[in-house]
Amino acid sequence: MDPSTLDPRTRSALKDAIRTIPDYPKPGILFRDITTLLGDARAFRRAVDELVHPFAGGRIDQVAGIEARGFILGGAIAHQLSSGFVPIRKKGKLPHTTVSIAYALEYGTDEMEIHSDAVKPGDRVILVDDLIATGGTATAAVELLRRIGAEVVAACFVIDLPELGGADRLRALDLPVRTLIEFEGH
Amino acid sequence: MDPSTLDPRTRSALKDAIRTIPDYPKPGILFRDITTLLGDARAFRRAVDELVHPFAGGRIDQVAGIEARGFILGGAIAHQLSSGFVPIRKKGKLPHTTVSIAYALEYGTDEMEIHSDAVKPGDRVILVDDLIATGGTATAAVELLRRIGAEVVAACFVIDLPELGGADRLRALDLPVRTLIEFEGH
Repeated sequence: MDPSTLDPRTRSALKDAIRTIPDYPKPGILFRDITTLLGDARAFRRAVDELVHPFAGGRIDQVAGIEARGFILGGAIAHQLSSGFVPIRKKGKLPHTTVSIAYALEYGTDEMEIHSDAVKPGDRVILVDDLIATGGTATAAVELLRRIGAEVVAACFVIDLPELGGADRLRALDLPVRTLIEFEGH
Repeated sequence: MDPSTLDPRTRSALKDAIRTIPDYPKPGILFRDITTLLGDARAFRRAVDELVHPFAGGRIDQVAGIEARGFILGGAIAHQLSSGFVPIRKKGKLPHTTVSIAYALEYGTDEMEIHSDAVKPGDRVILVDDLIATGGTATAAVELLRRIGAEVVAACFVIDLPELGGADRLRALDLPVRTLIEFEGH
């Protein structure tokens, strides 16, 4: 379920819809800006279709999106699959009882949370975010979902930065990973 | 296009899907928690269908969602309408050239931004957020969209707190407003 399963013309069209911004947020970083893909109605729809394609046949109870860009794709994917949506948010943003987890950033740590009652035990859940890099956020999100009783069926990302190893880290958690586009570097 | 155009059974089912949390984020506030609606696949789908129902026939180029809960509904609505999605974000979160605007909070002000090139001149855009209260954020978002050349066709919110007057403030900007559920108080 890596990008090699995608027809090359689709992959190239999606890649062309991503804007690269040099030296953002700091010198030497090539930032992959997904807003140009989201603003291109055909590319956005295509990305959603391709991300869910492997799961369209089975039952998916919930789509979990990681704040904030994962909310946009996750909302669209939940709509496409006729499933519910579960937000995974930065600490202090969810109003009811939560389970929280710390995860590593480049410098220091941060915390994110999920509502304790966001899924029913055994709910089949797909995790969604725009991009996977080192996988620090995504592995923490999988852990949160599992703690509240979800069966995490797969993780989906439009962009993979494979040199940073995040997708492999998720696969090591026995989780299928679906990505559409790869960029070198970070 | 106010909630009175909604069949009462649908309105009541959607209202029942909202969780009310007393004294959040501070004593005396009844917080209307939309996550329970989003996590209910049928209610989520119904809310999206009903929000876009008046616009399903016409051309909508972009759906603009306000960070962060507006991203979830906006992503789903963009998917439903086969349009693009434009994020309106808190200051400092968008990587390319932006237009920004200050808006009033209960205490003090905040700023939000949109990419300057997020729409083409004359693009027909629907603004989406989960809730409208005083309308401070929403009117600022409409102003941002108009500054970058969008034709704002309508604004959609699942929840209206009509006593706070936000929907009326938007209508005074010559903008159709679609809401689904009303709660008293704030």
